[in-house]
Amino acid sequence: MLENYLHLIRPGIDTHQELVVYMRQDCHVCRSEGFTAHSRVRIQVGERSAVATLNIVKGDFLPHNQAALSEAAWRKLKPEEGEKAYFKHAPAVDSMSAVRGKLYGKPLTTAAAKSVIEDINAGHYSDIQLAAFVAACSGNRLTLDETVAITGAMIDAGQRFKWNSERVLDKHCVGGLPGNRTTPIVTAIIAANGLVMPKTSSRAITSPAGTADTMEVLTDVQLSYDRMAEVVKQTGGCLAWGGSVSLSPADDVIIRVERALDLDSEGQLVASVISKKVAAGSTHVLIDIPTGPTAKVRSPEFAARLSELLIGTGAAFGLKVKTIISDGSQPVGMGIGPALEARDVLKVLQCQTDSPQDLRSRSLAIAAALLEMSAGNGQRTGTGQSAGNEWLTLATDTLDSGRAYQKFQEICLAQGRFSEPELAAHRRTVKATRGGIVSSVNNRILARLASLAGAPNAKAAGLDLHVRLGDCVTLGDPLLTVYAEAPGELEYALDFLMSHPDGVHIGEEAV
Amino acid sequence: MLENYLHLIRPGIDTHQELVVYMRQDCHVCRSEGFTAHSRVRIQVGERSAVATLNIVKGDFLPHNQAALSEAAWRKLKPEEGEKAYFKHAPAVDSMSAVRGKLYGKPLTTAAAKSVIEDINAGHYSDIQLAAFVAACSGNRLTLDETVAITGAMIDAGQRFKWNSERVLDKHCVGGLPGNRTTPIVTAIIAANGLVMPKTSSRAITSPAGTADTMEVLTDVQLSYDRMAEVVKQTGGCLAWGGSVSLSPADDVIIRVERALDLDSEGQLVASVISKKVAAGSTHVLIDIPTGPTAKVRSPEFAARLSELLIGTGAAFGLKVKTIISDGSQPVGMGIGPALEARDVLKVLQCQTDSPQDLRSRSLAIAAALLEMSAGNGQRTGTGQSAGNEWLTLATDTLDSGRAYQKFQEICLAQGRFSEPELAAHRRTVKATRGGIVSSVNNRILARLASLAGAPNAKAAGLDLHVRLGDCVTLGDPLLTVYAEAPGELEYALDFLMSHPDGVHIGEEAV
Repeated sequence: MLENYLHLIRPGIDTHQELVVYMRQDCHVCRSEGFTAHSRVRIQVGERSAVATLNIVKGDFLPHNQAALSEAAWRKLKPEEGEKAYFKHAPAVDSMSAVRGKLYGKPLTTAAAKSVIEDINAGHYSDIQLAAFVAACSGNRLTLDETVAITGAMIDAGQRFKWNSERVLDKHCVGGLPGNRTTPIVTAIIAANGLVMPKTSSRAITSPAGTADTMEVLTDVQLSYDRMAEVVKQTGGCLAWGGSVSLSPADDVIIRVERALDLDSEGQLVASVISKKVAAGSTHVLIDIPTGPTAKVRSPEFAARLSELLIGTGAAFGLKVKTIISDGSQPVGMGIGPALEARDVLKVLQCQTDSPQDLRSRSLAIAAALLEMSAGNGQRTGTGQSAGNEWLTLATDTLDSGRAYQKFQEICLAQGRFSEPELAAHRRTVKATRGGIVSSVNNRILARLASLAGAPNAKAAGLDLHVRLGDCVTLGDPLLTVYAEAPGELEYALDFLMSHPDGVHIGEEAV
Repeated sequence: MLENYLHLIRPGIDTHQELVVYMRQDCHVCRSEGFTAHSRVRIQVGERSAVATLNIVKGDFLPHNQAALSEAAWRKLKPEEGEKAYFKHAPAVDSMSAVRGKLYGKPLTTAAAKSVIEDINAGHYSDIQLAAFVAACSGNRLTLDETVAITGAMIDAGQRFKWNSERVLDKHCVGGLPGNRTTPIVTAIIAANGLVMPKTSSRAITSPAGTADTMEVLTDVQLSYDRMAEVVKQTGGCLAWGGSVSLSPADDVIIRVERALDLDSEGQLVASVISKKVAAGSTHVLIDIPTGPTAKVRSPEFAARLSELLIGTGAAFGLKVKTIISDGSQPVGMGIGPALEARDVLKVLQCQTDSPQDLRSRSLAIAAALLEMSAGNGQRTGTGQSAGNEWLTLATDTLDSGRAYQKFQEICLAQGRFSEPELAAHRRTVKATRGGIVSSVNNRILARLASLAGAPNAKAAGLDLHVRLGDCVTLGDPLLTVYAEAPGELEYALDFLMSHPDGVHIGEEAV
């Protein structure tokens, strides 16, 4: 038997989440194993192993007797530079037969869902196989039972938090609405009322800011579970990045492929949300479903079906879920981008006179619904547009009295610091080239504009939107201001706006 | 506006068919365009452009101001070393909405099929998107109309041959049966009868030999269309590699993903076969469907459905199709691997006494059915197990008289040479460890064994199978002989056989 090892090196190639190994075409391992480009290869380094896709190197960028790993593979296998790795063909992924079965119309059993998710979690699925799984679950092809099965498997595959409280509150937004940064305000109001809300949030993947990106402007968000627990014990809440803890890790892998395909699987979306909430130890969750023509959820019918599945799946795990189907026709607040959104959040918390009223009222509605859920019992869960008046009064009072802002600062300081946001120096204001009524605002174009200006990597970059739907503008009125950290990025974003003028559409002047 | 160009280099990384571009994380293009790992990027080099997946390089393997292309991307864009390339975000692939629609149950229209295949052909689909398309077509989800639509789009997307003959004969095997190398024999018999059969064949992708690999042992197979036409004009037939001509190129891309997923889409299979035959200018095609527990087609029901779709789709393009559902329970002939199969083919053509009788009789049955089709009219097409006796007599006579062998040599010489096969020097014969009846033979294990021994890259490698199903063996009888070009590969194949002893299964001795 040949010695099937090579020494590992790290050339620093980022292939995103896909694990790739690079080997020379003429290396003895490729030849004896019969590996070809795109073979799925099992790599063993000491006790650790992983499956990667093979890229064959024909030139001399790779020395003899060495194999290179992509960044994701290096992080997974954690070898020493030059450490020996052993290679063989990856075993067939048995659970793919369940995926094929589902494509042929066979229901996905609980056991099958478990084996699929375990294999995805272990990194056994290639991108192509992941895409087939996503496709198999797409449309409205997952039943409630199947959604529950996938959700359960996702919960089991990751870490699970426990909190010293009977009621652990949480919120979630189905997404797609720039600037909808209610989480910091809601968490502060809830915690200020003595309730427990250990909030973890995501960073932006394709959008110009995630809640974790926005919070990072104001405080440290990269907390271990132990640090999170301390902050929660001390303040009742936290506002941490979910990525530093390992809740429902298979979900992150699936989401990446769904985004690349732009393929909504409502079952997967529900499994994703509910598995993370159950794993995070939450007991009561308020889910915001912004609905509008350029939001993620585009029709009230889809919003209603999603709502039903979210509530049903949550119930299977003892999680109380309430949904709010909210207006998703335009961005929330004024800013889009981490620092600009952080500024809006602080304005609302500080009850400044020029604070964005939509962000304020949305946050109050969600906080009130959560307060009501927490006080009530299971029968009060379900879909609802607004909470009872008493709860809205409580939430408003918590905010207006300054108690929410005080709690927010407390949480930030417990997480490590409280910093004011700074905005980018390079700015340009775009003005109306005609008078009229603002007749449509395109969330997607504005989000893309903020991304091109540098958000979220450039924290101070993004844009301020100066108008709202229905506003009457005259020639020369400011529509939006673009912020960038470098002049090149500013120009680049403005070029994009020139070729996509429908970010803000001004219709005929009202007669 | 920034100058969005970098200079192209070629580090020789083979990512199979996937187009990959490597850029430095800190390069001005990535920063100004907001590219991240796995972004889909449009690359423009002079007049040529392509869409590639981005890998981000963090180390110094890539110098500043340079971008590297994978081999497939380099072949597609054909730049000079160091040539300037311009980069921007790839436009959204509009035809993916038809794929999403199909996943949601909407029929695939002719126009939609056309746009999908054109985009695939242009390289606009990422692997993930291809997988979603394959999944959308999987199961028995494609109707005859949809299959016809995809077939037509595939034909339009590639080259199309015309021959100076009213009847152009062709054959195809649905595959999965090692050693089933009837094509050279059938082509020789047909051409020896004055008929036209310009045969193109594929190389092995996952199997130990394709017909083109086997023929390459005997003659040159890499012919341009013009060379093919000359050979056909001179001899009536040819036995060329289909990959040097561009028939239904989108199909090759789709097949790779199907194989990686092990996902049979009967509609795709039919579109693949029929599009290539129509594009090749064939008028009458005999399709062999080997059926057995370890063949590609495992049940008679599936074989029948496939047969019906093949005939129906062919008819939509005026192509007469007849199918033979044949025994797929064990390999055909003795050898598996290019040179070993070439030896079997020559034995049959030379009517040697020890020639494999199964290869002979299958070839005669197919040749007879083709002769009958060619003589008859449209009403004679359809599924049939055997051709009329007169045609079988004609085929047998053509073979036994030596006319087929003479024609075969003629074709080979017209293609450039006629060489006898040479077998590999490193050999080991595996013997029966018990007496009994050969009760099962696993096509997949034997194919894998031949691949591990080096086939098809090592042309002389592979195996000879010394027994057939139902044979009675005693302890020490030879079961198979493994051939390899290097001792390491021989050991490696034998190791595999030790851990997979069920390649040839010997049951209890008959009482």
